[in-house]
Amino acid sequence: MAQDKVFIFDTTLRDGEQVPGCKLNTEEKIKLALKLEALGVDIIEAGFPISSPGDFKSVEEISKAIKNATVAGLSRAVQKDIEVAAEALKPAVRPRIHTGIGASDNHIKYKFNSTRENILERAVAAVKLARNLVPDVEFYAEDAGRADIQFLAQLTEAVIAAGATVVNIPDTTGFCLPHQYQEKIAYLINNVPNIDKAILSCHCHNDLGLATANSIAGAMAGARQIECTINGIGERAGNTSLEEVVMIIKKHPELNLYTNIDTTKLLPMSRLVSETMRMVVQPNKAVVGDNAFSHSSGIHQDGFLKEASTYEIISPDEVGADTSRIVLTARSGRSALAYRFKNLGYNFDRNQVDELYQQFLRIADEKKEVEDADLIVIADKMKALAE
Amino acid sequence: MAQDKVFIFDTTLRDGEQVPGCKLNTEEKIKLALKLEALGVDIIEAGFPISSPGDFKSVEEISKAIKNATVAGLSRAVQKDIEVAAEALKPAVRPRIHTGIGASDNHIKYKFNSTRENILERAVAAVKLARNLVPDVEFYAEDAGRADIQFLAQLTEAVIAAGATVVNIPDTTGFCLPHQYQEKIAYLINNVPNIDKAILSCHCHNDLGLATANSIAGAMAGARQIECTINGIGERAGNTSLEEVVMIIKKHPELNLYTNIDTTKLLPMSRLVSETMRMVVQPNKAVVGDNAFSHSSGIHQDGFLKEASTYEIISPDEVGADTSRIVLTARSGRSALAYRFKNLGYNFDRNQVDELYQQFLRIADEKKEVEDADLIVIADKMKALAE
Repeated sequence: MAQDKVFIFDTTLRDGEQVPGCKLNTEEKIKLALKLEALGVDIIEAGFPISSPGDFKSVEEISKAIKNATVAGLSRAVQKDIEVAAEALKPAVRPRIHTGIGASDNHIKYKFNSTRENILERAVAAVKLARNLVPDVEFYAEDAGRADIQFLAQLTEAVIAAGATVVNIPDTTGFCLPHQYQEKIAYLINNVPNIDKAILSCHCHNDLGLATANSIAGAMAGARQIECTINGIGERAGNTSLEEVVMIIKKHPELNLYTNIDTTKLLPMSRLVSETMRMVVQPNKAVVGDNAFSHSSGIHQDGFLKEASTYEIISPDEVGADTSRIVLTARSGRSALAYRFKNLGYNFDRNQVDELYQQFLRIADEKKEVEDADLIVIADKMKALAE
Repeated sequence: MAQDKVFIFDTTLRDGEQVPGCKLNTEEKIKLALKLEALGVDIIEAGFPISSPGDFKSVEEISKAIKNATVAGLSRAVQKDIEVAAEALKPAVRPRIHTGIGASDNHIKYKFNSTRENILERAVAAVKLARNLVPDVEFYAEDAGRADIQFLAQLTEAVIAAGATVVNIPDTTGFCLPHQYQEKIAYLINNVPNIDKAILSCHCHNDLGLATANSIAGAMAGARQIECTINGIGERAGNTSLEEVVMIIKKHPELNLYTNIDTTKLLPMSRLVSETMRMVVQPNKAVVGDNAFSHSSGIHQDGFLKEASTYEIISPDEVGADTSRIVLTARSGRSALAYRFKNLGYNFDRNQVDELYQQFLRIADEKKEVEDADLIVIADKMKALAE
């Protein structure tokens, strides 16, 4: 069976950058955009041009700098927004306007004080206007996660008929469970008559820790674009992590999907975004956390040293990390200790390792992590005794 | 339909504590164990007694201190391990021995250099021995995520017959997709004849960012215990986050499940574990991250200020957080700005807010976050002009 491509739409510079403390200047944004292009991202959402003069300038400059990827600019379903977005995107080789409006009754009532009929009209008008300005228009049905599914299908059909090339089904509040999000995408694939004329896109938020699972569930149901950010940064608990969905697609060939991402650039990209945006990545972050390839318990270390695949499904070099780490703590066993002594140039027999292990445990119960310096002290004593 | 209880098995002090840099002394462990009991955790895994004298002592002291929760001690399927675990658990009101062995062909071959038949015998012998020492025995089928499903069913049946009260089906390498993990649990529920005599437990790892989704998928298939840690800390990319699974179960009543957790203690518990274990929680961490309740984009702020439910599915006080934050950045709109001026005691009309908004945007394009002090400067100038 031929594999289907999943387009990776990166919104680190828009949904990620609007996070408290993450603001970048234009120069920093251009630098990150070029790195995202080199990573293999298909679409770079560069900003929200109407929101401020600085944002307009960044979208314009990124549009000049990027030659292969599509550059997207966000807008509400408002004439002025769309015109300003088109203006900022003018230098882009592949410009995309990303416009949309609330689709759930909650948003329609409380945010727009409007009706479904009126929302549908505004959506169609926005897409038509955008298509007069650029050939590639993505429509977002905000809060689709909580929207009435029949209205969502009606809205999707209408915006595709109006010229939308991509329809984004955001779980704006991060509320859906994976099977629920999957059912929504499947419903649209099966019930929107003109669905073959557009790509459905997953845009998930992580409020319940499910953004990655929901995006993959959406792709399993037929969505062919995933919107995500480096390190999963974004509004509140963040967006889908690019590195997680990309590695899931890579490690699960039975999904029959692929992406254009060069996974060996994932870790350097994660580090660059974390430093530039001053957003810490926790050590236990999947794929790119500092501990993602560290093995510390004795049971795990013993297995890992016999055969890496016992505890490791991603090899560190696949994501651009140096090497797996064997960390010595009170939970480490004899095999890890012997391995580290060997790396330090010592060759002890089994009885010696047994004795050294007791000394090691006394140090380990006192210290968080036993380092080479500690090992050398006890190893040299042992050698002196043996001589 | 009556709701089913999902038992929360916290392994912060075992699978969490074995992480590089997270080592705690006995006093710190007792303090955390008491807080976990107050949080409403059903089972506290206190350590791995055979692994070091310090760990033995911690399990023993936690067994003395905890009066309501079950206290579990880890062991391999090895006589000495099990006996030492029972010894450490002696003071516990509700002791549980958690013993087990590798169940996947990968682990059986590379780690144990053994056969399925031999593994089955060792598993049964270990459970029988443990049941002679304590009335509550949990068996873990390590690397169940990659195990042959028929062998896993055979093993599950055998250990239940031998007296296991709980059978833990770990996705040790964090490889399963949610629907795959769900199918495994469903297969066991439907094909193990004596399954009604034990509880199935989910123990998931986060290597692909799917631990939370997999645990919920397991519970949907009939598992009634979830093993997790505060902040999702643990080996490599960590374990399932307690706060995420608990909030999913709370916010999705259609699952017909409940837990015993007092969710208003989640954020204080997260902070305490982060500080005691020196493990940073990233700002975009679901439920307990610093930004989990921050709204920064103009579109979101406008909606949120009209009606919180437009962008918020968890109210901050539900998890013990102070309040939602409206952060002013270049992406903020007029409604957020007007709201903040009002909070500062200024009452401007629409035209004044429009003019102040232009000044605000110039500041916001220069600064990461606009603070009250910046607002007061421009507000006072405006007031002086108006007078």
